[in-house]
Amino acid sequence: MIAEILQPDLRLLIDARDWDGLREALEDMDPSDVADLIEKLPVDMEGIVFRLLPSARATAVFSQLELDHQEDLLRSLTSEETLHLVGGMTPDDRVRLLDELPTGVSRRLVMMLPPDKRNDTTALLGYPEDSAGRLMTPHFVALEPQWTVARALRHIRALKEEIETFNVVYVLDEQGRLVRDLRLVALLKASPRQRVGRLEDRALVSVPATMPREELVEQFKKYDRVALPVIDSHGVMLGIITADDVLDVQAEESTEDIHKMGGTQALDEPYLETSFFSILHKRGPWLLLLFLGQSVTASVMGHFEGELASALVLALFVPLIISSGGNSGSQTTSLVIRAMALKELEPGDWWKVMARELSTGLALGAMLGGLGFARIVAWQKLGWTDYGEHYLLVGATVLLSLLGVVLLGTLAGALLPFGLRRLGLDPAAASAPFVATLVDVLGLILYFSVAFFILRGTLL
Amino acid sequence: MIAEILQPDLRLLIDARDWDGLREALEDMDPSDVADLIEKLPVDMEGIVFRLLPSARATAVFSQLELDHQEDLLRSLTSEETLHLVGGMTPDDRVRLLDELPTGVSRRLVMMLPPDKRNDTTALLGYPEDSAGRLMTPHFVALEPQWTVARALRHIRALKEEIETFNVVYVLDEQGRLVRDLRLVALLKASPRQRVGRLEDRALVSVPATMPREELVEQFKKYDRVALPVIDSHGVMLGIITADDVLDVQAEESTEDIHKMGGTQALDEPYLETSFFSILHKRGPWLLLLFLGQSVTASVMGHFEGELASALVLALFVPLIISSGGNSGSQTTSLVIRAMALKELEPGDWWKVMARELSTGLALGAMLGGLGFARIVAWQKLGWTDYGEHYLLVGATVLLSLLGVVLLGTLAGALLPFGLRRLGLDPAAASAPFVATLVDVLGLILYFSVAFFILRGTLL
Repeated sequence: MIAEILQPDLRLLIDARDWDGLREALEDMDPSDVADLIEKLPVDMEGIVFRLLPSARATAVFSQLELDHQEDLLRSLTSEETLHLVGGMTPDDRVRLLDELPTGVSRRLVMMLPPDKRNDTTALLGYPEDSAGRLMTPHFVALEPQWTVARALRHIRALKEEIETFNVVYVLDEQGRLVRDLRLVALLKASPRQRVGRLEDRALVSVPATMPREELVEQFKKYDRVALPVIDSHGVMLGIITADDVLDVQAEESTEDIHKMGGTQALDEPYLETSFFSILHKRGPWLLLLFLGQSVTASVMGHFEGELASALVLALFVPLIISSGGNSGSQTTSLVIRAMALKELEPGDWWKVMARELSTGLALGAMLGGLGFARIVAWQKLGWTDYGEHYLLVGATVLLSLLGVVLLGTLAGALLPFGLRRLGLDPAAASAPFVATLVDVLGLILYFSVAFFILRGTLL
Repeated sequence: MIAEILQPDLRLLIDARDWDGLREALEDMDPSDVADLIEKLPVDMEGIVFRLLPSARATAVFSQLELDHQEDLLRSLTSEETLHLVGGMTPDDRVRLLDELPTGVSRRLVMMLPPDKRNDTTALLGYPEDSAGRLMTPHFVALEPQWTVARALRHIRALKEEIETFNVVYVLDEQGRLVRDLRLVALLKASPRQRVGRLEDRALVSVPATMPREELVEQFKKYDRVALPVIDSHGVMLGIITADDVLDVQAEESTEDIHKMGGTQALDEPYLETSFFSILHKRGPWLLLLFLGQSVTASVMGHFEGELASALVLALFVPLIISSGGNSGSQTTSLVIRAMALKELEPGDWWKVMARELSTGLALGAMLGGLGFARIVAWQKLGWTDYGEHYLLVGATVLLSLLGVVLLGTLAGALLPFGLRRLGLDPAAASAPFVATLVDVLGLILYFSVAFFILRGTLL
């Protein structure tokens, strides 16, 4: 009601450009009424009237505006005013607005928010977890291309705000697109009158906000930079990531891989700070899964119970044979998983790895097989154990089984990580225990099959 | 002979301060004769005469001097002349000289050598492999404390030499001791007339040249620096290490740990670039060692052959039981080794880890044991397998054995890394395969012992 009565007066004040009078008049109005008023103004007037509002009220009024008017207004406001406005909105309102804005503008807005508010919003804006967009900080030094070096240095000297690093400064065009990154020393060494937009320092390297953090680590190593700028798909600079952040990321990535390779879900916190139940929760399910896989061995052994009864000597070498396969598989899988994490192996390299592991597996298998055979013969000859009259055939069974099972281990250890990656899963989950479990089951079948062929007619 | 004849003349030239005449006279002399001459001069004259020599000859003459004269001379020469002299010596001569010099001086000299010569000498000087002293580069910006900020900035602008980073600059006193490190931006923001020795930027952090590289990574993470200065025991600054170097170091450390945890010696080169024989060399010995450990299982099984013959059903669960111990051990050992690498666990924490793993092992063991018991009962009741009339006792044997072996696995996985570290060995060598092998042997003994007590009078 008040608004309706006052509106004609406000019009007069606006027409007369009586800003002081208008400011007083707006002070007593309800935010929604002010919003109504602003929406009825021509676009160029919206910003002017809006700026008359005290900042706390401005936020309230802004929230009441229709989306398209919010956008118009944002365009006509300076960055600092924009920040204040958007920061004051509730997370829901904020996301509603940011969703509507052209991506470049909205992402820049998000990065200008204070950290506590930014985190909610970046998550909602859909940067994938563990992406560059979640790691970056918006506190960098931005320069305008037409500035002289002298002006840029004055600007840097005068900066009071919290800045993540001064080592590298960034030249952005009017749309906020990244034009150039300059080391501070390059600025210092340049002629004071040169335009910063014309300075040449080094090749421009930037990373997209969607880049997964493990690739980020590779970028830092490749370019030996202390900071990398993060941009959106339009080239608009959103923030920076510094080398020391990446050091932490790299350590976390390795921790995850090592935990997974040990056959447990990665702990989120240091070992001693993880609660008993959290540890159980991380370890229990995987141990259970492995147990279920392993329990197939009991069925396999049961299946060959007849052979075992006829040739009990076969039972003696079961642990030795299956664990040899597990060990060689564990070696291969840890080499392959680490090489994948370091980007030394591409998905198309699987056949190269297979070829290598085939020869390695044969060589290592022959070595262990030979040793196993020698052990049986030696123990028999020395009289330490009696493997029966067919000890040479038992030895041959063990030799061939070891050769086969070690080969099986290396091939399974090589292929499983590639297979998992193909399925979109983490190769590190092809941990040594899983390879060992697979090889245990297959190794037992192999062992009894070899025994069946070699010992048929003698022991079996 | 020539020297003896000429020497009186030289004396005259020196007494008359006839440097041009002396320079000509020295040109025709043999380096060893010039060295003799210099050794006979008073200390303050040595440097003067020496400076008359062309630089190539100076090096030759320098090598001929007695050690104490070399030292005297070095003290009276400027750094650049020193560099040239020492760089021109053969590695052996260089080390002989450097060994004699006070440490601070000699290490500074080494760092001034060109990189190719430096590498030999740093190795010889005894920086341990993988220490900060081996990683550092001597190319940093050094400032003198009494310089004004304006002069320091002029100095930096004029620097033409290769510098690793300009982001941080270092104030050294006359003895080369590190007084202060300043970010370039701090210099830029300071008043031009201030003395750099008086500037306050942030706490001074430095690392000793002997610091192992894995600790270096921790320092970078702790202090969030892009570069850290390296000093000797006298506080003399020797070089710097930058964050991107440390990123590589960290990745290499993780690679080593992961390879070792997989039961292989760490590869020095990427997987695909490592030759077949080199791979065999890295994997073979460990696989062999594991095999020898594992072959104890054949003896253990042989020892219990009588029990196996009486109760063949026991053989069926051998793989399941021993691998469950291996899996829980693998989980624990990977958690503990990683926590050690991240310095989350100190040597004195072993009992905390034991306490945790005791309860974790019991809980996980009870879970698997219960499941194993349930499986035996279920298979029996469903008629899928016939475990005989004493199947409940067999189930109880499996239950208790699983409980024991999982506990054994967790405790062995927890203690082995601490034990290895106590012995001065790498905890990562307590890899999953080694824990599994240990637990296989102990687990078998446990299993048959449990069976003996439970099944005595029935199956056994």
